[in-house]
Amino acid sequence: MRFGGPQIAKELFVSFEGIEGSGKTTQVRLLHDYLAQTAIPFIFTREPGGTPLGERLRELLIDPLGQMSREAEMLLLSASRAELVDKVIEPALEEGRLVVADRFWDASLAYQGYGRKLPVETLMQITMFAARNLAPDVTFLLDIPVSVSRERLRGRKKTTDRMEREKRDFHERVAEGYRKLAAADPNRVMVLDGTRDSDELATEIREVVLSRLTPNPAPRA
Amino acid sequence: MRFGGPQIAKELFVSFEGIEGSGKTTQVRLLHDYLAQTAIPFIFTREPGGTPLGERLRELLIDPLGQMSREAEMLLLSASRAELVDKVIEPALEEGRLVVADRFWDASLAYQGYGRKLPVETLMQITMFAARNLAPDVTFLLDIPVSVSRERLRGRKKTTDRMEREKRDFHERVAEGYRKLAAADPNRVMVLDGTRDSDELATEIREVVLSRLTPNPAPRA
Repeated sequence: MRFGGPQIAKELFVSFEGIEGSGKTTQVRLLHDYLAQTAIPFIFTREPGGTPLGERLRELLIDPLGQMSREAEMLLLSASRAELVDKVIEPALEEGRLVVADRFWDASLAYQGYGRKLPVETLMQITMFAARNLAPDVTFLLDIPVSVSRERLRGRKKTTDRMEREKRDFHERVAEGYRKLAAADPNRVMVLDGTRDSDELATEIREVVLSRLTPNPAPRA
Repeated sequence: MRFGGPQIAKELFVSFEGIEGSGKTTQVRLLHDYLAQTAIPFIFTREPGGTPLGERLRELLIDPLGQMSREAEMLLLSASRAELVDKVIEPALEEGRLVVADRFWDASLAYQGYGRKLPVETLMQITMFAARNLAPDVTFLLDIPVSVSRERLRGRKKTTDRMEREKRDFHERVAEGYRKLAAADPNRVMVLDGTRDSDELATEIREVVLSRLTPNPAPRA
């Protein structure tokens, strides 16, 4: 589908969220592969990372020098996000690109707030500071039961990534936290059943993105 | 002066603040040299840094990969502080050590808030999160006119440290910010004229620290 030129009809910021094994990365990739065949100008970002500073922070977060405090972890993730917003997301939106984020601040509220039990309201204040009040227009939450997540992850190569070593009840809190965030902001967050067929999900996601890129017809007088 | 053993009479957390060239580092050193001759158990900390993670963040802050956003800078400083509180300051206070900090969170409010014009109230929320509501018991603010600071700094080796390259009006805002913070919290912050003789200042600081380490006599019934 083409929009008659490289400029998208309106600024659009889309994010994907979900626990490990939810199929989030697959859906991000399928949307990317689709967009690459169109004339829609876009960028994809990932968290933490996406800038030189953010990639250095990603290293520190994935391979920490000993166990860092929950507060330090939250602040490093937020610093990486602040830099991503300043250097990548805001400039891309200003240039009229579609921005697709593989995780944005819902992840901090779900993981650091509900998962690690830091106060969600305080995290929201930090998050709004880091993101300069920028919120995604649409967030796709891939929701799956933690039991399915664990089963899917068993097939993957074992990793020493600290975040993946976390315990099952942690993931239960994160999954439930994501659901609470979605329930609190239903106009933004679209909950998708992550156990559904991935091509079927990709089609649904694509249609939502395309519909949001097309300007609404002018209302009749 | 001895307190009858390696245990200090009460938990005490002291910080030093001031703009570059204020004599802060000299006073920190003079207090350190004095304490090293006593039986008082103590630790000194510096910001950013003081932990393995903090030292890595210090490198990123001093030699950034390009100009980082003001928000990212604030969040990295706060992450370093969170780690310092978790790994160094809180454990030391729990062990009954005197903790002396070469800068603590007043610096973020003065530099990132008043200096870089980020919202001070939001920074205070981030700061309280990072420091787990820990505040110094006594803060010595070495106050000097920015003109004196600039004059003193001219004698020093030229540095590429980004923070030292900042403009004069920035330092004016920082110095004024420190004064506002002191005025708002006079029971904690002691403002000292940094143009006074350094030995005289050191004596005054030492006496304040020692008086705070000595338990108050029990009130009469």
